[in-house]
Amino acid sequence: MTRLPTVEDIRGAAMRIAPHAHVTPVMTSRTIDGIAGARVFFKCENLQRVGAFKFRGACNAVLSLSDEEARRGVATHSSGNHAAALALAARIRGVAAYIVMPENAPAVKRAAVEGYGARVVSCAPTLRSREETVARVISETGAIFVPPYNDPRIIAGQGTAALELAAQVDDLDAVIAPVGGGGLLSGTAIATGSLSRARTIGAEPEAADDAARSMREGRIVPSNDPVTIADGLRTSLGELTFAVLRERGVEIVTVSEEDIVKAMRVVWERMKLVIEPSAAVPVAAVLRRLVQGARIGVIVSGGNVDLTRLPFT
Amino acid sequence: MTRLPTVEDIRGAAMRIAPHAHVTPVMTSRTIDGIAGARVFFKCENLQRVGAFKFRGACNAVLSLSDEEARRGVATHSSGNHAAALALAARIRGVAAYIVMPENAPAVKRAAVEGYGARVVSCAPTLRSREETVARVISETGAIFVPPYNDPRIIAGQGTAALELAAQVDDLDAVIAPVGGGGLLSGTAIATGSLSRARTIGAEPEAADDAARSMREGRIVPSNDPVTIADGLRTSLGELTFAVLRERGVEIVTVSEEDIVKAMRVVWERMKLVIEPSAAVPVAAVLRRLVQGARIGVIVSGGNVDLTRLPFT
Repeated sequence: MTRLPTVEDIRGAAMRIAPHAHVTPVMTSRTIDGIAGARVFFKCENLQRVGAFKFRGACNAVLSLSDEEARRGVATHSSGNHAAALALAARIRGVAAYIVMPENAPAVKRAAVEGYGARVVSCAPTLRSREETVARVISETGAIFVPPYNDPRIIAGQGTAALELAAQVDDLDAVIAPVGGGGLLSGTAIATGSLSRARTIGAEPEAADDAARSMREGRIVPSNDPVTIADGLRTSLGELTFAVLRERGVEIVTVSEEDIVKAMRVVWERMKLVIEPSAAVPVAAVLRRLVQGARIGVIVSGGNVDLTRLPFT
Repeated sequence: MTRLPTVEDIRGAAMRIAPHAHVTPVMTSRTIDGIAGARVFFKCENLQRVGAFKFRGACNAVLSLSDEEARRGVATHSSGNHAAALALAARIRGVAAYIVMPENAPAVKRAAVEGYGARVVSCAPTLRSREETVARVISETGAIFVPPYNDPRIIAGQGTAALELAAQVDDLDAVIAPVGGGGLLSGTAIATGSLSRARTIGAEPEAADDAARSMREGRIVPSNDPVTIADGLRTSLGELTFAVLRERGVEIVTVSEEDIVKAMRVVWERMKLVIEPSAAVPVAAVLRRLVQGARIGVIVSGGNVDLTRLPFT
């Protein structure tokens, strides 16, 4: 296995992406502090470019390529934020991007990726078809595969959000982030554990609790097509992200679907911030007081939602 | 008529409310700049306390009262942001607030006002019943009436948003704000005209274009129950706000209902900010390129919406 990324890798990523990524603001809410019984600091990656932290990792990965590699272009399969993030990162580097998307992906997501100048290749909506199609694209074009999370450059890039947060807010007791594949959470654990005394906590839906089970059992226990509104957290841990979470002793907490929607609504109504269901997962944990500490940082992972299909009733 | 407020009144208001009001951030979006053909700076009053600029004026009015006046409590009629703003301002000063609300006001709004400790008095949903009920409450309690816009202390308070904006962003060509009763727009015109070379523009729905007609005809032409999604802009200019807009030569532009919803959606989707329809009105004008200039400030008036009744399809 590749060596585990370090805080020096995250510092390197921060330098690399600085000309392109936003230093996102940290926001607070008295109402939420009251419910949580703590001071809560929201690191607003929904205000990052492409509307999600994913731009940090994709940008670091693409800018880490040698000129020779970069000329070959980059490829991935994703129907979500990683697709848009890689497309924009490739455009910034001036190289081709090939994005394999399932044919049932929302037209608006496909349009966004094409809007960044990427070539979209359709495939059947199964993991097997996605993997086969991206393999074919790579063999035809020679493009470099940029995975969504199980990659040291991606992890280092995602860790730059927590690196910034550590500089923006003093004396945190805990930092909590959502966990799907674990790229954001492992990068957060490395940055937070190296730069502060704060603990790192992962939050995931009860309905997609593979990270909690994996940490408990000491081996990767993949989710099997989990059903959760938090569409960004349906993936399972990778070898590399799992190794980081184990090494750093990261604790995982889980929340119900109902609590995810409630948390999303509180943030929209009281903070006036559009956050996606996956980003509401750690907020739900904080509102449920599952995280100990008087000062808690929350990585708000993204804000990409379909406004015509909202869960509020 | 009362003398017109000056920039010194706005500076005084800023000092008075500083311990209680947020200095709201200014946000930008490359996407919106591209559509508008200008650099657009969003002054985020949706992130102000109670979710709207209205807190500035209400807070200034309540803090301007003598101790003797304040002890009598304050009263107003409003089903919107002024109600919540006055309730919070009264709580800060530690005095009673009596808010007359139409009996068909949304339960959530009533609950918000009561949550700030105000006494809510119901009335029939007509202007006449509102005025009669507030008159009765005042005669019974001795409370001081705090009007929503046609008042020099309210205008001075609302002007503090533009005062901040002038310090936050250099070299604006224009500042645009929505116009309903004209409290925000007249305060904006005084601050902007006194502190910069920027023009002040008012934006209103075509369906509630009383300000445009009033400026054209040189007399107040009230709206008669206008139907617009911009519920904060259904009121008509008052004598004092009209006088300020005339004195400052403020230009009014109008936008369609369809453009208001489109602008609201662009801000939610691309900036991840929850803004209310009234706040989307000046954004719509900017997206339609109705405002000349390379650098345009927009006062984003508020973010209070019912998430179960959104106009997106």
